[in-house]
Amino acid sequence: MQIPRIGVIGGGQLARMMVPPAVALGLELHVLAETDGSSAAIAATAVGDYNQFEVVRDFAKTVDVITFDHEHVPLTILERLEAEGFSVQPPAKALAFAQNKLHMRARLAQLNLPMPAWREIHTAAQLDEFIAQHGGVAILKTPIGGYDGKGVRVIRSSGDAADWFENIERLGGALLAEEKVAFTRELAQLSARNSSGDFATWSLVETRQENGVCSVVISPAPNANQTTLDHAAQIARTISEGLGVTGVLAVEMFETSDGRLLINELAMRPHNSGHFSIDGSVTSQFEQHLRAVANLPLGDTSSTAAAAVMVNLLGVDDSNDFVRHFDKAMREHPSAKLHTYGKTARSGRKMGHVTVLDQTSAAALDVAQAAAEVLRRG
Amino acid sequence: MQIPRIGVIGGGQLARMMVPPAVALGLELHVLAETDGSSAAIAATAVGDYNQFEVVRDFAKTVDVITFDHEHVPLTILERLEAEGFSVQPPAKALAFAQNKLHMRARLAQLNLPMPAWREIHTAAQLDEFIAQHGGVAILKTPIGGYDGKGVRVIRSSGDAADWFENIERLGGALLAEEKVAFTRELAQLSARNSSGDFATWSLVETRQENGVCSVVISPAPNANQTTLDHAAQIARTISEGLGVTGVLAVEMFETSDGRLLINELAMRPHNSGHFSIDGSVTSQFEQHLRAVANLPLGDTSSTAAAAVMVNLLGVDDSNDFVRHFDKAMREHPSAKLHTYGKTARSGRKMGHVTVLDQTSAAALDVAQAAAEVLRRG
Repeated sequence: MQIPRIGVIGGGQLARMMVPPAVALGLELHVLAETDGSSAAIAATAVGDYNQFEVVRDFAKTVDVITFDHEHVPLTILERLEAEGFSVQPPAKALAFAQNKLHMRARLAQLNLPMPAWREIHTAAQLDEFIAQHGGVAILKTPIGGYDGKGVRVIRSSGDAADWFENIERLGGALLAEEKVAFTRELAQLSARNSSGDFATWSLVETRQENGVCSVVISPAPNANQTTLDHAAQIARTISEGLGVTGVLAVEMFETSDGRLLINELAMRPHNSGHFSIDGSVTSQFEQHLRAVANLPLGDTSSTAAAAVMVNLLGVDDSNDFVRHFDKAMREHPSAKLHTYGKTARSGRKMGHVTVLDQTSAAALDVAQAAAEVLRRG
Repeated sequence: MQIPRIGVIGGGQLARMMVPPAVALGLELHVLAETDGSSAAIAATAVGDYNQFEVVRDFAKTVDVITFDHEHVPLTILERLEAEGFSVQPPAKALAFAQNKLHMRARLAQLNLPMPAWREIHTAAQLDEFIAQHGGVAILKTPIGGYDGKGVRVIRSSGDAADWFENIERLGGALLAEEKVAFTRELAQLSARNSSGDFATWSLVETRQENGVCSVVISPAPNANQTTLDHAAQIARTISEGLGVTGVLAVEMFETSDGRLLINELAMRPHNSGHFSIDGSVTSQFEQHLRAVANLPLGDTSSTAAAAVMVNLLGVDDSNDFVRHFDKAMREHPSAKLHTYGKTARSGRKMGHVTVLDQTSAAALDVAQAAAEVLRRG
């Protein structure tokens, strides 16, 4: 069997983190980066604008399968690629749901999957009605283009989103209102599926956010009972199969005090909630994504330790690249796995992460937080 | 602290396997490869002949520290680099012992380290005397240029090495005769040291050879008692400190039926006996080598599983690159970690390896051998 050459559109940290497993396995990986000096520069074979069909097609001709670092490639481009016979994984019909949160909600509803109450909003009156029906508060989202807390607002009146209504056509033609869930914590279920239908899940994880950005991931999610684990895995499988996803799928969920799981967001690619798997699983999400989009059999997703904790390294200013504090962090925390993404420092930017394995998640969290703090402050 | 840019001379699989940890950490890695399309091509920033001083110096100017994929760079070149102020790790004075087995034996003798009986041989008469003193048989080695069973012969008379005596000047000016040890098994102690003097060992491993080439490594070495473990670690430390090694050091040893350890060979670089550590240790030998030559603190060398077994993939013919059998191997052995080196197939060539982690080394060996066999035969 000829193993396909894999092309990744986008040169961010997710493409970068596909490089180590590609090198280890000996798979051919090409990256179409946005700029020179991208995070994934070591594997960049082309630089160009993924919004231009000819750029993407020229890149696609150099590989056997196209996959993604992000979900921003215009659907029309992906559909044209597929019409011309190129293999796009996940396919355009699946990515359509990742690119538009209204389409996603409608499809999840068809699949009878548990979600916060939601409504497609076209007018201020509709929004105010929804707010009134849900305790005077709502989560309002732009259906396209949002990530890491962008395109999401907590609102108490349609007036809080007057600017979005003014630009509603550019934002997707409608808005998505969701019930503000009184959750006890957030969970994420990582899974992978290849186009032959093989499916695998990792352990359910707990995720913690700061300002809408993932800050900590704990694997496995502490104190999750078997019913919750089974339910989360079944949700992931239903979505993956129901939406025709190939590659890694991350399902972010709320857990409520009465034990319900409500689907918050989806990502059809390796995801921040799965970075722990690089060090904490037999097969990482990045190796698995390569296997899945190449339609190879999936690897063992068992954990390599009782607990794994990942802490994100968000830029603290415009000069600290975190690497400069390696000496102290390595000396004080020899068990910490340090990851940086080769990015220029910028406040708030995802610059790297730290993963620590230990016998308990509390112990792992202590070390990971301490190591991250050394990298942040020196 | 500015983290040094690391330059590796040689584009083989050892340089290749430094790429994943360099990408993960975010360290800058440059490789001087012998040819285009080398195993480490993804990180190759220069292509040229490491026997030419100007080639090596031009490369050295692009990095902050020079290290190695192999031990074949002429010592005179390394000494000139050091004289011009370049940082070479391990330094030339240490590499001198790795490049010449007679110098190595003499230095280990000064350090009172346990070895097979040995003698520097200049004449056939000296060799025949040595053979007579050691049961009618000896291991004869060329002091320079040998590896993977090359430059090593079992002989029963000086006549068995007539061709080496004829070319003795080219082979190093003398030969090395060693007692043929009646060993029960072979062991290897992997360690690392940075120039600040930090030192770390991995678990002692058992190594099995076929035709002078490593075929299987079992970590930890089964049934090794604490005295043996302590002794092996102490041998590695004495050598590393005594010879001024920086970076990874592999010490290959014979274990005898009465529990003695006798030093066979040394390698001052990541080594085949340490490939298990990529998947089986918190810090792999490749990450540790980067840390050590950059004089960063060393990482935790703990095992990530009760047992790890590595099986080498030696080329079976001129067409099987092993990647072509990934589909079957991955389907039948989802827990096997498959590694290939991006090399053109050639019979006997080191093309890749498989590592399996399990609760027992017997279980891991079974799966690793089975997965390797699928990759060899399809």
